[in-house]
Parts: sequence; C-alpha cells; structure tokens
Amino acid sequence: MHNNTLIHPSAIISPKATLGKNVTVGQYTTIYDNVIIDDNTTIEGYCEIGVQNHLSNGVTLHIGKNSYIRSHSIFYEGSTFKDNLTTGHRVTVREKTIAGENLQIGTLTDIQGDCIIGDYVRMHSNVHVGQKSKIGNFVWIFPYVVLTNDPHPPSEVLQGVTIEDFSVISTMSVILPNTTIKTGCLIGANSLLGIKTEPNTLYSGNPAKKICIASKLRLKDGSRKPAYPWKNHFTRGYPKEVILEWEEMSNEGII
Amino acid sequence: MHNNTLIHPSAIISPKATLGKNVTVGQYTTIYDNVIIDDNTTIEGYCEIGVQNHLSNGVTLHIGKNSYIRSHSIFYEGSTFKDNLTTGHRVTVREKTIAGENLQIGTLTDIQGDCIIGDYVRMHSNVHVGQKSKIGNFVWIFPYVVLTNDPHPPSEVLQGVTIEDFSVISTMSVILPNTTIKTGCLIGANSLLGIKTEPNTLYSGNPAKKICIASKLRLKDGSRKPAYPWKNHFTRGYPKEVILEWEEMSNEGII
Amino acid sequence: MHNNTLIHPSAIISPKATLGKNVTVGQYTTIYDNVIIDDNTTIEGYCEIGVQNHLSNGVTLHIGKNSYIRSHSIFYEGSTFKDNLTTGHRVTVREKTIAGENLQIGTLTDIQGDCIIGDYVRMHSNVHVGQKSKIGNFVWIFPYVVLTNDPHPPSEVLQGVTIEDFSVISTMSVILPNTTIKTGCLIGANSLLGIKTEPNTLYSGNPAKKICIASKLRLKDGSRKPAYPWKNHFTRGYPKEVILEWEEMSNEGII
Repeated sequence: MHNNTLIHPSAIISPKATLGKNVTVGQYTTIYDNVIIDDNTTIEGYCEIGVQNHLSNGVTLHIGKNSYIRSHSIFYEGSTFKDNLTTGHRVTVREKTIAGENLQIGTLTDIQGDCIIGDYVRMHSNVHVGQKSKIGNFVWIFPYVVLTNDPHPPSEVLQGVTIEDFSVISTMSVILPNTTIKTGCLIGANSLLGIKTEPNTLYSGNPAKKICIASKLRLKDGSRKPAYPWKNHFTRGYPKEVILEWEEMSNEGII
Repeated sequence: MHNNTLIHPSAIISPKATLGKNVTVGQYTTIYDNVIIDDNTTIEGYCEIGVQNHLSNGVTLHIGKNSYIRSHSIFYEGSTFKDNLTTGHRVTVREKTIAGENLQIGTLTDIQGDCIIGDYVRMHSNVHVGQKSKIGNFVWIFPYVVLTNDPHPPSEVLQGVTIEDFSVISTMSVILPNTTIKTGCLIGANSLLGIKTEPNTLYSGNPAKKICIASKLRLKDGSRKPAYPWKNHFTRGYPKEVILEWEEMSNEGII
Repeated sequence: MHNNTLIHPSAIISPKATLGKNVTVGQYTTIYDNVIIDDNTTIEGYCEIGVQNHLSNGVTLHIGKNSYIRSHSIFYEGSTFKDNLTTGHRVTVREKTIAGENLQIGTLTDIQGDCIIGDYVRMHSNVHVGQKSKIGNFVWIFPYVVLTNDPHPPSEVLQGVTIEDFSVISTMSVILPNTTIKTGCLIGANSLLGIKTEPNTLYSGNPAKKICIASKLRLKDGSRKPAYPWKNHFTRGYPKEVILEWEEMSNEGII
C-alpha cells in the first residue's frame, strides 16, 4: 500500500506507523502501529520495529533521523532514540529506554529496557544491559559485558549500574548491582566489579581491584603516550564539534 | 490454505503439523511436519518450529497449551514442553529435551538438547545449556551462564551438570562437567564451579569456593530478612497452589 | 524467476549471484549480488548471503561446495570459505575472512572479519572472533570464547590473537590481544589468557597461569589414557586421510 520505492514490497508496515521522508525498509521487516521513524533512516530486512508490550504503557517508539538499524533487529514500543542511531544485527531493545544521539549498538546486544543512555555511547557485540542502567556520554562497552541490577536474584529489588562519561568496560566483565563507574575509568577484561570507584582509574580482576591510574597505561602504537583518557588519541567517527568540546573539557580539567 | 484468522497468511505451515484450538502463528513463521502445538498457544513471527534433524529419531515436537514463543525462535523436532512455556526472542532448542510446566527461556538462550528440565524453571537471556543437563524445579539461571558437559574437550565423554530445586546461578558463571548444585544453592556472578556442593550454600569465585550459608545474605529492601531461600520473599508469577506447596515444604524442613 | 525446485519461491536471489548445481535455498532467504556458491551447498531459510559493505572492497563472497549454512545466518561479501563449511543458526560473518576446508561455526558465533582460519576448525556456539585473528588447523573453540585485538580499547591498534594447530580453548575464556596459543595447548574454562605459551601445555585461571603439560590430564572414559593431544582419542567427523596425516605427525614428533 506504500507508494514508496524505498519500502520493500514484502515489508509489513502498519498504516498507523509514521515514517519520515526517505525512510528505507528492507525485505520481510514488520513495522507495528506505535512507531515514529524520522527522515533518512534505514531499517534493514527481517526486523520488527515497535513490538507491542503491556509494559510500554502505550508510549510510542521514536527513532531519530539518519539512523541505521541492521537486519534481524527487534525494538519494542516505548523507547526513544535521538538521531544517528546505528545498530548491528539481531539487536533487541525493550521498552522505556531513553537514549541520546549517535548511539551504536553492536550485533546481538540486548538492552533490557528502562535505561537512560547518553550521547555517543558505543556498545559492541553481545552486550547485556540490565534494566535501570544509567550510562553517560562517550562510554564504550565491549563484547559480552553484563550490567546487572539484582543484588540477590531473584528479587523485587532493582539497583541498576551507573556508568559515567568516557568510561570503558572491557570484554566479558560483569558489573554488579548498584555499582557506579566513575568518569574515565577502565575496567579490565573478564572482571567482576562491585567496589566503589575513583575517576580515571583502572580496575581489573575477579573480584576487581584498583590497579593504577588509567593514564599509566601506554599506547602500543610506538608513541608511548598515555592510552587514557582515550579521547586524547582516538577520534574516529566523532565530528569536529565533539572533538572541540573534548578539548575544552581538557582545558577545564574535567577529563 | 489455513482457514484460520489467527494464522498470518505469510506463515508456512505443514499440513502434517497438528495445531490445537486458538493457536496463533505470526508472519513469516515456518511450522514443519512433525509438530503438535496445543490449544491457546502463540508462535510469533520469523520462527521455525519442528526443524527436522536425524538426531531426533523422528520424535514429534510437542508444545503444551497456553505457551508463548517469541519471534525468531527455532525449535527442533524431538523435544517435549508441558503447558505454559514462555520464551524470549531468538531462542534455540535442539532435540530430545523433556521440560516441565511453566518453563521460561530468555532471549538468545540455547538449549543444546538431550536435557531434562523440571517445572517452573526460569532461564534468563543468553544461557547456554549443554547436552545432558538435568535441571530440577524452581531453578533460576541468569544471563551468559554456561552448563558444560565435556571434562576434556573434545571427547566422547558427556557428563552433564545437575541442578537441584530452588538453586540460583548468577550471571556469567560456568558450571564444570559432572557438577551437582544442591537444593537452594546460590552461585555468585562470574564463577567457575567444579566442586562438591552442600544445600542452601553460597559458592563464588574463579575457581568457586564455599562462602557461607546462603541465608546469611540479607535483603536490600530495608527489611534485613534473609535473601535465601528466595521463595520466602519472591513470589511474582507463581500461582497460589505453588506458593502453598512451598509453605508445606518449609513446614517439613525441605527448604 | 528461478526455474529450480531447490530454491524456495519466497527466496530473493539476485540475478547477479552465481549458484552452482544442486544449490538449495530456503524460505525467505536473500542472496545478494556479489556471491558465488559452489555445487551441492544448502542455505537454509531466513539467511542473508553476501551483504554489501564498503569495507569489502567489492570482493566476492565465495562459499565452497558441499557446505551447509543453517537458518538466520548472515554472511557479508568479501570472505572466502573452502569446501564443506557447516554453520549453526544465526551466525554472523563479516568481510575479508579467508577460511580453509571443513570449518564449523556454531550457532550465534560472530566472526568480525579480516581473519585467517585454517582447515578443520570447529567453533562452538556464541564464539566471538575479533578482527585480525589467525587460527591454525584442527583448532577447537568452545562457547562464549572471545578473541580480542585491541590492547587499550578504544584505539587504532589492532593486534589479533594467533592460535596454532590442535589447540583447544574452553568455554568463556578471553584471549588478550597479541597472544599466541602454541600448538596443542589447552586453555581452561573462564580463563583470561595474556601470557606467552609453550606447546602442549594447560593454562587456566583469571589471570591464566601455566598449570602442567596437557598430556597429564587423563581421560575419564575409564582408560586413564592421556586426554591430550585429543587427536589420539577423538576422531569423530574427520576423514581417514586426515587421521592418517595425524599419525604421520605423531611419528615425526610434531604433535
């Protein structure tokens, strides 16, 4: 019924859904009723966008402009993503998550819902973001990281994890409930983190302990410059205005 | 060909499959030959139900009534699920598993087959249940847990894990082959468990060691009551007759 | 449009793709332009084969003969697989990977691209193979293993892992960047490996340490024979000429 060459004829699109200009929808994708997709966004094939769920309280799923959702992904109604969302394949996002601009969600990552996510957050493949997680800006989360929330499972107590700006969580780490990862921290691979953290510090191990100031780690590119804060050497994919913002932060001693 | 408004027209359903009353089948789902689905069950879209496999020995896949299988899930022929099965998305279940009532299987969980699973078992997202696992009743398994079976991989020796009633395995833990987790145990997050266990005990670490009686852990809801056995404070989703059964167990000193 | 009874009518196949004799394509599968699939290969349903990507530099995806790709899998253009590739479900394979014969890739496994993989490699479910990984012949990788590549994430430095012939990595282990696992090593479950290795040795723990010569581990099949090298007792699925080749290697003292 869509008189739009960007919509594959096998896509099933509710007439109640609102699609902006130049929205592309791939083969065999379903877009349900309670969805707003902004201009220039692509939804690849085999996706389900706006799955109905009683926990969503009927809130509309809103996907910002210039977004790109790769195939086999599932988004429930009830969440909001600002512009330039990019996902891998087979992503699952439940209801009531509010995310900022330029979020990247890797293949197989599972966002359980009721989360708050800042701008320019990059989650790699197969990350598990438990309910009530609060993630700042410019955070990196690597494969198979789990953000937990229940201090004595199963229970009715939900104490989500807080991750502050510029923090990095390496692969296969578990962050225990109610833990706050302070600005600029690095969590080593396969760690179990449940202690109080200080900013710009490396924690590692099972259980994770304080190792050193993160800036002690040196780049292995031959320069021997500090590897952290990573923003001082890694700028791929960030626009100029963001990098200028980072420089101001440095000048002000924020990070 | 199905004169049934609950079956999406794009679903591919073998005429040899047996569907009960009020069975709903979503878009682009395939139901193969050797399948019985009981009344009032929903199979969402993009699923494959009853995948043929020579290891199934031709045994029919049977899904009990009032079940709900979420989208993109794959079930092989040769397994049996009693009533009220509920799954997340992208679940994979291989052949020759026998499961009780009210099983919950989370998104991305992979049951490798040849397992025995009791009643009211709840597996969260991305659990990996190796072949020959035996899981009791009222067991909880959290994300990224792996139940192994080969003591010296690769080999022809398969020694599955046994998990007794009311046990809880926290996220990212590996249970080594031939390990028995006794009734009411709690396994901490990111543990590697391979030792003999006693009932109602907390084991944690890599390698996991005995920490204390599980009931020493206190609820963080302000009450300071024991957090384990969890059945004494967590009853969401269990029907009255089950909760009465639990009270009798308490009175008899079983747990 | 395909006058071929082995192609499901709902499959979407580019006329630019090259399909050999007796190629089977399942329901709702998409095969894109830049693909060569050799004779007697089966692609099950809901797959995407040859996803276009600017990082592929337009290189054709080539899948060798007698291969079997299970449903819901996604292969990008730009990689090459020799004959007898077998996959589980929901596999993701990115661009620029070169793989040998008889590769097995388990359900949910994610190969990030730019990897070199030998002959007869067997990856189980949910393995994460980072970019720049180099994997020899007859290697086994078990569920939830992560092969990393960035020594100080995020950065532009990519130092992939090298895994030599006959090595075995047990479930839930992380291999740190630039690590070489020598011939015939065994890495224990839930390990974090970042040290220099010697051949035919067991490493285990978080962080992983040298435990003993791998051959000290005994088979639990009653024989008490050494469990490693595994090729001396486990031959299921390997053809006669491979087993003869292994015997020659033994005679020459290679492993």
